Order: sequence, then structure tokens, then C-alpha cells
Amino acid sequence: MDNNQTNQTQDVKRRFFRRSDRRSASGNDKGHGKPEGASKQKKEKEHRRTPVKIIPLGGLNEIGKNMTVIECSNDIFIIDCGLAFPDTEMPGVDIVIPDFTYVEKNKDKIRGIVLTHGHEDHIGGLAYLMKKINVPIYGTKLTLALVDGKFKEHGLSGKVKLINTEPRKTIKMGCMAVEFIKVNHSIPDAVGMAIHTPAGVIVHTGDFKVDYSPINGEIIDLARFGELGSKGVLALMADSTNAERPGYTASEHTVGESFEKLFAKGEGKRIIIATFSSNIHRIQQIVNCAHRYGRKVAVFGRSMINVISTAIELGYLDVPKGVMIDIDTMNRYTAAEIVLITTGSQGEPMSALTRMAMNDHKKVNITPMDFIIISATPIPGNEKYVTKVVNELMKSGAEVVYEKMYEVHVSGHACREELKLIQALTRPKFFIPVHGEYKHLKKHAEIALEMGMPRENIIIGEIGNVIETDGSKINVVSQVPAGKVLVDGLGVGDVGSIVLRDRKHLAQDGLIIIVIGIEKASNSVVSGPDIISRGFVYVRESEELIDNARALLSHTLDSLSPQELREWNYIKTRMRDDLSDYIYEKTKRSPMILPIIMEI
Amino acid sequence: MDNNQTNQTQDVKRRFFRRSDRRSASGNDKGHGKPEGASKQKKEKEHRRTPVKIIPLGGLNEIGKNMTVIECSNDIFIIDCGLAFPDTEMPGVDIVIPDFTYVEKNKDKIRGIVLTHGHEDHIGGLAYLMKKINVPIYGTKLTLALVDGKFKEHGLSGKVKLINTEPRKTIKMGCMAVEFIKVNHSIPDAVGMAIHTPAGVIVHTGDFKVDYSPINGEIIDLARFGELGSKGVLALMADSTNAERPGYTASEHTVGESFEKLFAKGEGKRIIIATFSSNIHRIQQIVNCAHRYGRKVAVFGRSMINVISTAIELGYLDVPKGVMIDIDTMNRYTAAEIVLITTGSQGEPMSALTRMAMNDHKKVNITPMDFIIISATPIPGNEKYVTKVVNELMKSGAEVVYEKMYEVHVSGHACREELKLIQALTRPKFFIPVHGEYKHLKKHAEIALEMGMPRENIIIGEIGNVIETDGSKINVVSQVPAGKVLVDGLGVGDVGSIVLRDRKHLAQDGLIIIVIGIEKASNSVVSGPDIISRGFVYVRESEELIDNARALLSHTLDSLSPQELREWNYIKTRMRDDLSDYIYEKTKRSPMILPIIMEI
Repeated sequence: MDNNQTNQTQDVKRRFFRRSDRRSASGNDKGHGKPEGASKQKKEKEHRRTPVKIIPLGGLNEIGKNMTVIECSNDIFIIDCGLAFPDTEMPGVDIVIPDFTYVEKNKDKIRGIVLTHGHEDHIGGLAYLMKKINVPIYGTKLTLALVDGKFKEHGLSGKVKLINTEPRKTIKMGCMAVEFIKVNHSIPDAVGMAIHTPAGVIVHTGDFKVDYSPINGEIIDLARFGELGSKGVLALMADSTNAERPGYTASEHTVGESFEKLFAKGEGKRIIIATFSSNIHRIQQIVNCAHRYGRKVAVFGRSMINVISTAIELGYLDVPKGVMIDIDTMNRYTAAEIVLITTGSQGEPMSALTRMAMNDHKKVNITPMDFIIISATPIPGNEKYVTKVVNELMKSGAEVVYEKMYEVHVSGHACREELKLIQALTRPKFFIPVHGEYKHLKKHAEIALEMGMPRENIIIGEIGNVIETDGSKINVVSQVPAGKVLVDGLGVGDVGSIVLRDRKHLAQDGLIIIVIGIEKASNSVVSGPDIISRGFVYVRESEELIDNARALLSHTLDSLSPQELREWNYIKTRMRDDLSDYIYEKTKRSPMILPIIMEI
Repeated sequence: MDNNQTNQTQDVKRRFFRRSDRRSASGNDKGHGKPEGASKQKKEKEHRRTPVKIIPLGGLNEIGKNMTVIECSNDIFIIDCGLAFPDTEMPGVDIVIPDFTYVEKNKDKIRGIVLTHGHEDHIGGLAYLMKKINVPIYGTKLTLALVDGKFKEHGLSGKVKLINTEPRKTIKMGCMAVEFIKVNHSIPDAVGMAIHTPAGVIVHTGDFKVDYSPINGEIIDLARFGELGSKGVLALMADSTNAERPGYTASEHTVGESFEKLFAKGEGKRIIIATFSSNIHRIQQIVNCAHRYGRKVAVFGRSMINVISTAIELGYLDVPKGVMIDIDTMNRYTAAEIVLITTGSQGEPMSALTRMAMNDHKKVNITPMDFIIISATPIPGNEKYVTKVVNELMKSGAEVVYEKMYEVHVSGHACREELKLIQALTRPKFFIPVHGEYKHLKKHAEIALEMGMPRENIIIGEIGNVIETDGSKINVVSQVPAGKVLVDGLGVGDVGSIVLRDRKHLAQDGLIIIVIGIEKASNSVVSGPDIISRGFVYVRESEELIDNARALLSHTLDSLSPQELREWNYIKTRMRDDLSDYIYEKTKRSPMILPIIMEI
């Protein structure tokens, strides 16, 4: 255990407030004028608190790359550092990470990074950040194990201090302290946080839901949220993912009940279940079912194998002896004796389930003897991939059960009634909805409004906003650099808007290259124009079009005066314009046209 | 009325069967051997029927481009000819239409085209088909009006015979006849069909739902489906779109009830409603609400304006006098007095609503005084576009109501209980689920199985299948050409797999062009290598990489022997391979590499 940690949260808090008072007294506050009476004095006291800055660098008005900077006086710490997946506007991009400019610039102030849980959208940017700054990372056991797995891939293992902590423990971050609070989510070991600052306590839920019957028996620490609320919470930052959805999110247990029924239904067949590798509790329920039904479990997909072995090693997954078998021993068992757990619940093109569906998996051949459960909901944007996989699996004769027909998935995020519960428990003065697109943040803000919070106490922020509160008011006071940094292969940030614009243009209508050779001495065209195209038309069937284009360009070149022939940019522009007009007239397409002049 | 039409369906049927018998007698059947007794004779009689072929050319295992060929003896007719929208695997493609090879080859046999309704996925391919064959098109009034609109855009208006028909009427198609049957759907004037053939009656539902309280009062003609069923239906082809959904599809009326509540909620604000332009009944309900609340209606979006004016002209939309106003007179009214109806319910990038959301609309500026209803469900693939529009509208302060929160949309397709109803009414011998991806067809087939149909009587077909039935059995007997024909600009079919592969490659990692000049006489490199890239890296920040690549290529060229320098393809391959390895090592990207050699 790190010596920065303590169970004596109250002590820590008291110390901080004392310190804060001292600082205020020494002129660090933003108090206006001198006290002029008892009530003024009280007001003044409120104002004297050192303000704290909340700077979201990701996760607002977007899904993914969650990252928040908390800054107070000369101390900074960071909550989470996730990645986002590229959308169709970013062809060829592998992942998207936050803009680290602000934290790089202030790296001397950074006391550490605290992690809420081990999902990619919360830890997937860490390896990239650690190449710029090196600060200790605090998280629960499973979260850090998953981070370490990523660091190994990036050659960072052992180079960064990973410090284990747990719920109800507190980490000192300069003049602030972060207390971990247990929450329920679709991955074990998820936490929210109480951030004790000179300005007051900020509660951050992390990603959460309220599960009264979680698989590991550990219910979200509602009592601690309530305790904090009754002592006074300055601001609440809460997960907005499901702010559109009425009611409560169902317990993970309901999925287990569905599995029970489906295992009975799939009797005699091989059962294949695809789910998220990080959903250890889901996997626990599959293992339990398999054990009860006397089936063996084999695991497919790199991330599934990695996470399951980590979870078993750390004690997060309890697998009865003899249940887990090696893929290569599968053929010792009949279909009826086997359960396969696999990646691919989002229809990811390279995943194990997708390869099985496309008859492209070395070890698994789908037949009518397969009973397949897709235990997930398609993430927006993945619907078509999942549908394709379902169709292909069914074409091989397998029975396929997916979300539309059975309760084989529950969300990991709180619905509206749970969000109200957290508001009611923490009773915050200010509210900052986080983790969602604008519509989610807005719906979440409306919940706070409905519950009586004044409109001016709610901040729907944007990434890069510097949200400052001194305990009595809250405002966006300035802006720091923030945005998307695109990772493509080994390149971080070298794919920007121009490259993307070109990629999209090339994808839409393809490319025509014009090459001519000009003899510099005589300024005459001595070779070409040659035309090469890609992604435009099938050339063999469009010879006439290409021939005519070449003739047109020859004519363009012939029409140039000796003076014009000296201006290569002019020649390029003329060729591009003339060809572009001709091609559009003939095809109603606008391929990228690249004129190249070789000097001879 | 066309003289091919008659109300005397029974007469027609009798005649056909007589004719069929005659033909059988004259050797046109596939009967096996001679009668050898009373029971054999009866069997033989069944076999003597002239077989009918059902050839789906689109709409199976896919969403869109619905088209079915019905063929019997020397007669062919076609049901629908729709388009599909391209998916992400088809960058730059505008629309997808069916492969017309088979109908072109058999154009002399084609007696006509019958249309079920006026949606794009049923009529959007007609203009392209009519450039290949010219046959009369039969449809209901609104359907034909929408077809005529499309034909005008393609310069085909007046060149094709469009023949109006209506439910309960029958059209002769050589040895077959098609009877139209009224159904409910999300567009008025939708019909199913009873196809009277020598082999028996085939019922095709078209796209349908069962609405007991449709806006125009015209309930689906369940009685006729029942009558056909009690007389004997050979095969049923039915809409599988919602075969995954339990229960019943709600009546269009429920949306009207939501509008009533939402108009009250939006009091004092401008109301903007986005929906599908073809959903005339939805628009009727908006108009009714507007009238009751004393609001004026203005219409936005080209297709919305076109369809509404057509619908008013033909009497499908009843607009009280003075309710509809011109866009340019909007500013004479306060926000509280106005309703805007607009396109863009799918977040289409160029649509009116999207432009309003992006602050890019000339006439409409979104403010907190707007109450916006998106009366539609995102079609799979469009979720992210719709979300983006919702986010942007909300950022402008507008209140936005969409499907997640209110019942502002109902489907136009039958759910499982309605599908069972049609099975129970028509009691078909054979069943061919249509209009859906494989998963939909499969789920629909399971309904028939559950209702007692033998498995061998159900055909889950594929496009291009020739499904033949002689009244006693049904089989896929052969295959005709079928697939996707891509339309890009003016080009129909000139974008194929190679062009798409190149477009996707260019989109993923961009392009590097290498240009060298070789003097033919001496076989020496006299200029270059020059390197040009697009969509690869931001060149200004990657000068070192490009410089090193150029040096590498110079080295490659220097290493070539005089013999090798004569083999231009060898030179290109060497340059491509060497550069490709280098680039991948440095960036983990694989841009398209295009070596160009100029002869000097």
C-alpha cells in the first residue's frame, strides 16, 4: 500500500480545509474587499476558499476518450485517460485519443492519475500519455492489471508506477485528496470518487449503475454517497450514458436467469456465447451455468483469453476445477458437452465470432448443432456488422439468440431513476453531467432541474472548458487546447484534417493522375500527357473516356503560350480544371485530379 | 381503365385453369408417365398444371431493391423494381439497383410490371429498367404519380405506359392474372397481390401492416385474404421486416395522439416536425393538429414539397383552406402560430433539418423558441447521423423530441402476431418469406413452422433462385444472374469490385506516387524519383520520412543492372516493394503505391 493512502478520510478532509483557510488568509483567494459585518463576514468566508478547476479533456459531447483534469493551486491530477473509436469521417484511423497539450505544459504540477475502471474509453489513452509524462497511476487491482497489459504492448511495463488502491481509501494529490467509492458497472472493480478540495467536495460517479444483486455481492456504496451528501457536496459529476432511458437498469442477474433458460433450450447442441471480454461477471455466470449443466468451457479471441486469465489469476473469476479446457482438446468432447466463450459480440471484422460466421475460423465450424448467444447490444455504428454476423451464423443453420428476442444483455450504466437516486443522495450544490453526447448531458441536466436545482448551478460543459468553482459559484472561466488526436499505425497526430479530407475525396470518386514531362531548357512538353486512374472507373470498359480525356489535355497543352509554359503551377491548374469539367460532364463524378510535371 | 382489367376475378381464374388444362393436355406440363388407375389419375391431374416460376432478383437477404419475376410458360411479369442504399463497403456509390440481365434476356416475354407501393425500395430502380425494356407499369394512383415524378427526372415521362389500377381489380398477364388487394402501410395506396396462375394462386402481401384505425379509414382487406385462403392458396410470399418483433405494430393513430400532447407541450413555440415525405397519413395528422391548434403549416425539403403537392392534387391529403402557407410568408406569423414540416428525419447530410441543425439553412434559424419532433426511427446505419442532428439542435437551445422518449413513430410493417394472422387467413400450401435479411426470413419461416407448416414447404430463397412450383411441390430448380449493380453519378455498373477495392484502400491509408523518367535510348533514369502523396501523412511534418523514402528509391534504382532497367514492370515492382516495406516499418501503414515511369 502506498503511504499516500489513508483510511482516515475525515482527518484528511479536515486538514485540507484548514490548509485551504490558511491559504486564503495568505492571499490566495479571490475574495472581494474587506468584511463589513457579520453576514458579510460569513459570505467572505465562503469566498475565501481556494478555487478548484475542472477541465474535461474528453468525454463531453462525445462517446469515449474520457479524461478530466482537476486543478487546484499548484496541484493537478487526472481522472482517466481513455480512447475513442473513429467514426466514418475518419477513414483509416485506428483510435482517437485526447489532446494532451495542456497536461504536457503543466506536467510539473501533475501529482498522479486516478482511474475509475478498466474499460478502453477510460484507460486506452494512458500508454500514449505516458510517453509524454510519467506520473504514478492509481487504481483498483483489476483496473491496473488491465492497464499493465496495455503497457506491455507499448513496451512501457515497469516504467510507470502503478499504485493499487481500493474503495474507501484516499490518495493525497497535493492540496487535494481522492477517495475511491465502490460502484457497480459492467466490469468489476469500478469506482466513483469523492474529490476533497479546498473549495469543497466534488463527487464523480465514474461509469456506474445501481445493482442490488451484483454477481460478486458488492453493491454500490450508496451509504458513502449519502454520507458525503449529508456533509455537503460542492459539485456532482455523473455518468449521462443512459440519461434518455426511463426507469432502472436491470441487474446483471437477469442475464444469468436468461442463460439458465437458454442452456436448457440449447440442450444437445454446442453453445457459443459472445460477449465483452471485460464483463467478468457475465463470464462468471456463463461459467456457473456451464458447470451446472456439466459442460466444459473453451475460450476464443485474444482479448477474451487475456482478460479471463488475468481475472482468474487475480481472483475475480471463480472457475471450478476441470471446467476450463484448452481449445485443442475440444474434440474430445461432444457438442452437447461444450460451451465456447468468444469475442466478437460487436461483429468486429477480425474477431473470433465473425471469423466463425464467415467460415474462416481454423478451429470452429458452425453447423445446425450450434446454439449461439450474442450477449451484448450493438454499440451505435456497429448495428450493421452485428446483423451481418447473425445472418451468416443463421445461414450455417445455427440457432442464434440476440438482444431483440431475449434478455441476454443489460447495460452497465444508470437509467433515469438511478441518476435521480445519486442526485438525492449527494445533494450537490452544482452539477456537471459528464460521459455522453450533448443530448445525454442535456437530458441529465433536465433531471437535476426537475429535482429543484437552479439552472445556473448546472454546467453543460465542452472539452477544453476550464470550469472553476470557489465553493459559492461555478463558471466556465477560460479554455485550454482540447480535441481529437488521431492514431493511425505508429503515427500519433500526423493524420489531420487535410489527410482525412483527401482520404474521403479518394474514397468517394477515386483519382486521376496526369503526368507530363517538360524540357526545362526549351520549355516544351516532351512527353505525355499520360493518364493513370484508380478507384474512378473500370478502365478497360472506359477506354473511350480516358482516350478523350487525353486528347482534351493535349489540346489544353497545345493552347498554352511559351510564357504560360514557364508557369508550372498555371499548367497544372489548367489541366486540372479542363479535365475536371470534362469528367464531371461525362460522369457526374469529381475524382481527385493530380497533375504531375516532370522536369527533363 | 385499361381493358386488361376486370372485376370478374372468378371468371378469370376459371378461364386460366381451363387454359392450363388445355396446355397440359397439349404436352406443356411436366407430368410423369401415363395414368394407371383412379388415384394415380388424380395425382396426375395435380401434376398436369403448368408450373410457375418465382424468381426474386432483389429483396432477399438484403434490405432494399425489391424485385420479383413471376414466369409461367411464355409469360413473365415483374413485381416492383426498387433500389437499395449503399453501405460503407461501397464508398462513393449513390444507389444500388438489381441486376437486370435475366429480364433483358427475356424481354419479349414480359407482359408488364406491377407495383405494390411507392417507396424507393420498390420503385427506385424502375427508371433504370425502363432504359432497357419498355413495358406497361400497373399501380395504384399515388404509386404511379410517384413513379412519374421519378421518370420526369430521368427524361422518361410520357415514354412509358403507366396504367392505373385499384384494389379488387385484376390485370391479365398472359396466362396469369394479378389481383390487387388493399393493405395498410406507411404510405397510402399500398397493395398486396393475388397472382392467379395455372399452378394455383400465389398471394404476395407487399409491404404491409394491419391497422384497424388507419387515417383514411381503409383497413387492410383481410376478408379478401380470407376468401382466397378458403378457396386455396398455393403459396404465400410475405413481408418479413418485423418478423423479429413480438406482438402487433401500433396503429398510425397512436402517433396522432402523441402529436396532440406534444402540440400542447410546445405551446408558444415554433413546432418543427421531421418525417418521411411519403408518409402522407403522418403528414395528414400533423396538418389536422396544426389546424386544431390554429397554426399555419410551411413545408421544407424538395421531396417533402413534391410529395405533399402531389398528395393534395390527387386527394390523398386533405388540407383545410388557409392552413398551408408559403415559406416566404413565414415571418408574418409568430413562432407560436407556425408548424414546419421538413425532410431530414434520418439525419441525411443535405436535408433541410440537418441544414437547420448545422446553422446552414437560409430561412430557418434554430433557437430556444423551437420545439422539434423527429417523427421517425433511424434506419440501421443512420443512427449516428440522427444523433448528430439531435445534438446540434439541442445545442441551439431547442427542445427535441425523438423516438427514445415518446411514441412519435410507428412502423409500417407487420409484427409477429400480424404475420400469423395472414398465415391463418391465407392458409397457404407453400411459404416464401420475402423482404428482409436472412435473420428476418428465418424468423418468419419459424412462424410458419410453429403454425404447423411442414419444413419442406417453406423456401428461404436467395436472389437469382428460380423457385418452381407445379401446385404439388416447390423447389429451387436453377439460378439466373442476380446481384448488385452500382450507380455512381451517370455510371450504371462501371463501378465494380476493383474500383471499390481501390477506393477502400485509398481511404484507409492514402496514396504514394513515385515518378521516374527513363531515357529509352540509353535505358537510364534521367529524372526522379519524385514522390507525391495524398491522404497518407501531413507532408510538411513528415519531410524526413519522405526524404528517406526518396533516398531509398534512388538506391533501389542504382542497384538495378542495365538488363533489369529494360524491364519496366520489374522496376515498378522493385520500387513498390522496397518502398512499401520501408513505409510499413516506419508507420505501420500500407498506402497504395503507384510507380509511374515516363519514357523520355
